[in-house]
Amino acid sequence: MINRIDLKEWQALVNHQHHIANHHMRDWFTEDPERSSRYTLECGEILLDYSRNRITHDTIALLCNLAHAVQLTHQIEALFTGQPVNRTEDRPALHTVLRNQNHTALYVKGENITLQIKKSQEKIGDFVNQVHAHKWTGVTGKPISHIVSIGIGGSHLGPMMCTHALQEYAVTDLNIHYISSVDDTHLNEILQKIDPEATLFIISSKSFLTIETLTNAQTILTWMQSKLGNDALKRHFIAVTAAPEKAIQFGVPEENIFPLWTSIGGRYSIWSAIGLPLVLLIGNKNFSDFLRGAHAMDEHFRQADFAENMPVLLAMLSIWYTNFFDCKAHAIVPYTHRLKYFIPYLQQAEMESNGKSMGLNGHKLNYATSPVIFGGEGCDGQHAYHQLLHQGQHLIPVDFILTGNLSSNHSLHHQHQNILIASCLSQAQALMQGKTYHEAYANLLATPLSPSLCAELAHHQMVPGNKPSNILFLQRISPKNIGALIALYEHKVFVQSVIWNINPFDQWGVELGKQLLPNILQCIQDTGKRENTCSIPVELIHHIKNVKGQA
Amino acid sequence: MINRIDLKEWQALVNHQHHIANHHMRDWFTEDPERSSRYTLECGEILLDYSRNRITHDTIALLCNLAHAVQLTHQIEALFTGQPVNRTEDRPALHTVLRNQNHTALYVKGENITLQIKKSQEKIGDFVNQVHAHKWTGVTGKPISHIVSIGIGGSHLGPMMCTHALQEYAVTDLNIHYISSVDDTHLNEILQKIDPEATLFIISSKSFLTIETLTNAQTILTWMQSKLGNDALKRHFIAVTAAPEKAIQFGVPEENIFPLWTSIGGRYSIWSAIGLPLVLLIGNKNFSDFLRGAHAMDEHFRQADFAENMPVLLAMLSIWYTNFFDCKAHAIVPYTHRLKYFIPYLQQAEMESNGKSMGLNGHKLNYATSPVIFGGEGCDGQHAYHQLLHQGQHLIPVDFILTGNLSSNHSLHHQHQNILIASCLSQAQALMQGKTYHEAYANLLATPLSPSLCAELAHHQMVPGNKPSNILFLQRISPKNIGALIALYEHKVFVQSVIWNINPFDQWGVELGKQLLPNILQCIQDTGKRENTCSIPVELIHHIKNVKGQA
Repeated sequence: MINRIDLKEWQALVNHQHHIANHHMRDWFTEDPERSSRYTLECGEILLDYSRNRITHDTIALLCNLAHAVQLTHQIEALFTGQPVNRTEDRPALHTVLRNQNHTALYVKGENITLQIKKSQEKIGDFVNQVHAHKWTGVTGKPISHIVSIGIGGSHLGPMMCTHALQEYAVTDLNIHYISSVDDTHLNEILQKIDPEATLFIISSKSFLTIETLTNAQTILTWMQSKLGNDALKRHFIAVTAAPEKAIQFGVPEENIFPLWTSIGGRYSIWSAIGLPLVLLIGNKNFSDFLRGAHAMDEHFRQADFAENMPVLLAMLSIWYTNFFDCKAHAIVPYTHRLKYFIPYLQQAEMESNGKSMGLNGHKLNYATSPVIFGGEGCDGQHAYHQLLHQGQHLIPVDFILTGNLSSNHSLHHQHQNILIASCLSQAQALMQGKTYHEAYANLLATPLSPSLCAELAHHQMVPGNKPSNILFLQRISPKNIGALIALYEHKVFVQSVIWNINPFDQWGVELGKQLLPNILQCIQDTGKRENTCSIPVELIHHIKNVKGQA
Repeated sequence: MINRIDLKEWQALVNHQHHIANHHMRDWFTEDPERSSRYTLECGEILLDYSRNRITHDTIALLCNLAHAVQLTHQIEALFTGQPVNRTEDRPALHTVLRNQNHTALYVKGENITLQIKKSQEKIGDFVNQVHAHKWTGVTGKPISHIVSIGIGGSHLGPMMCTHALQEYAVTDLNIHYISSVDDTHLNEILQKIDPEATLFIISSKSFLTIETLTNAQTILTWMQSKLGNDALKRHFIAVTAAPEKAIQFGVPEENIFPLWTSIGGRYSIWSAIGLPLVLLIGNKNFSDFLRGAHAMDEHFRQADFAENMPVLLAMLSIWYTNFFDCKAHAIVPYTHRLKYFIPYLQQAEMESNGKSMGLNGHKLNYATSPVIFGGEGCDGQHAYHQLLHQGQHLIPVDFILTGNLSSNHSLHHQHQNILIASCLSQAQALMQGKTYHEAYANLLATPLSPSLCAELAHHQMVPGNKPSNILFLQRISPKNIGALIALYEHKVFVQSVIWNINPFDQWGVELGKQLLPNILQCIQDTGKRENTCSIPVELIHHIKNVKGQA
């Protein structure tokens, strides 16, 4: 297979980049009054304005050529038809099947996977109805009022992000809590807030071996048994796992176990029973809308021409900056409190999927792959790290996310919303247009400062501009649109992986730390002097033990 | 002034980097059993293990030479003695004065600034005592049980981070809430939680012009007046500002205004009245310890030789990777829930301070400045973006932060704490040592897979290692140690700025967005067809208005 960078389509982009690198977007906007509408695309209730990118008509054409050269269409079909796209684990990646509520039969290794999925969804539906109808009660007969999800990584970031995003769509007053890290500070805070008799714990772990999750679950089980006796397991513990036998061993009754499948990656699993805390909050109908929104994005992705395909465009723009402008980071800045946790979610989705350096052919890659993803709620960043976006030594593309009306209608809402939208647009505009030395100087001359001081200060106040950004405008936060938004980024990540010739569905890099852990843990736990039996220098272990009062 | 990269000390580092770039740290650990203790430094209750860096004895010497060449000692003295180190604004940076409780006189432009600081600290002390003793009550006579801080950027990130970090040191059961962004979703959530008769609002804005803060404050004032009448202002609103006349105009009584000074930058202001929510939580004595911890770090920074100076070492290691290994990002990974908000705090501290591209001499710099700061709670990241740290195409240095015993003593605590510590050490070790192709192959051979498949898969499971990290080990989370930790990073940032020859105390890059805002806001608000009077394309404005139902 030809190395990506030797493809003529790749080289054409290298040449094109040299050609346009010195053009300023400001000039393009002046020259072309149609630029904004030319580079705007709608899909359902999501609008993408990508006019503030360092692109011309040719750029998009050349990027699409590259996508065709690596047979993207073929790869997309492989994803949707259950081919083993996760090649290092010889598995398909079936997250798109989970949200296809038509339940079109799909056979993987002779088995109709959609039947299992349908059955699991019905089990989720029944269970949620029981909890909502107060038919599922705790051992003492109390209806459930608190849900505590115990999971980490893919078993945590998706559900947490979505329950926060879709608070306005809650159909119950269930309180949903999340415990992920093994630091018991947080765990203890949550135990103080709940009523054991009215709490359901959902243990989510694909392998049912995750040390943080199992440690937290065991601590909670001990606590619950001290309050409610051994019956606690029957009515208060649920497991979501692909290893039901281990959940049973832990003590979870078989009927309380919801299945997962090895072909659903953790970071692509919100559509499965991993989404249970979300379904409990927003109910079956809203969850169905959530799946429907994602499915609509799937259809768009599968059918639209690349130049009008939202996930393909987002991916190719990221490729453009990562591989041709040497950008190392990408900022995600939602101007809405409801998407606060979209950043850690995307950090996993992008960096775990595409943070690779080995090609599918087993050769070390000689080009960049996933950038660092960072960001935060919009207005907050403006008063903090945006300084670096505007005047730092980096070129960092930004995805701004904006939403229209929420369902809420309280007074004064409109003024807050107007300022929020105007703030976002001002940032996108400032990044694009910048401020020239002469503009800065002219501004300064209007102050009482001396002209020579103005001339000096203008150097520090000029802003280069020409910094790219996308604006994603969601008509509203809704289950359907959040489903579509997540699917949009999932597919963006997939397209990037195809261009980079890597497997986005494995994560071998996180295994080494897990392998080293047991031995190091043993060193920390040993009360004797066996500190030198692990790879950590004995002095550090000794210091730590001293502080812990165990040495 | 000679360009930094033309200094012979800089060039010596370039040569040195070529010399050691191909060495693997794993070999250095094998060859030198003393490596761990050689590269360990203690300051108060903070231990820094920097042995997992791509450094030799020579590296440190050469980095110190560079620090001397740019007259770092002289610059440190300028900082501590009130010289106008914030040169583009012709001001000193006085945050270190705020934590010097000896109140040594310091004259700035003829005024003894320490007297004003002392007076302000006494006012804070009195006020906090009144609230804690229930002598400060709401208009209806209720004692205060909720504090709502309204501020953004430097008026938000420091207090929020610290109140979360020091929860275990609370001396009252006051509930502290923070409102920053102008998205009123969050504001409304908080208003639902509080009792207006028992709530104190602290409006923190240096200029008292910040649009998000003033908009939120106005909405809350209207709400409070609807509940408690006009008297609400007297007992329920506090202002922290350097523009008292504007706070008075807003309606805050003069006696409720706590001063700030223009010479305290927002991101360096937690030591001032901006820290009020923290003082209300932890009390005057703990806050005094907090200041004392920072002051001890100040003294260490001012006095220790560079090679044994913790802030200088952290800074020079960052310079080493940023400028000689072309690193663009730096991860901060605390393995403690209590330091969860240290990441957004540091994003501001580092990226706003050093995200610059203009030298103090007004020349565009031709070398890198602040990297992107990102990260998150330790165990969470392991199951997400750490994949990229281990196997991505980046070299990203990591600061791990670990803590010893918390004050809490609940059962099972130790096992959780042991796993937390072992997890952190495993990550540091995995990043450093990696896994060779042969190790991966040997591991795979122990599975039922065929040798040829093992040979293929080993390519994907190998981990290069040689990734640098620091471990900062705090003996405990305490006001003193958190004070010291913040001061450590403040000074790290200062040292970097001196090496880079930039001003870390201004932030002109964030001004342009503010300048553009009013006009864009006008376009969004106008109900008529005046969309084309701002720089945003009319189609986008029109689309947004359509969705908002205003077009």
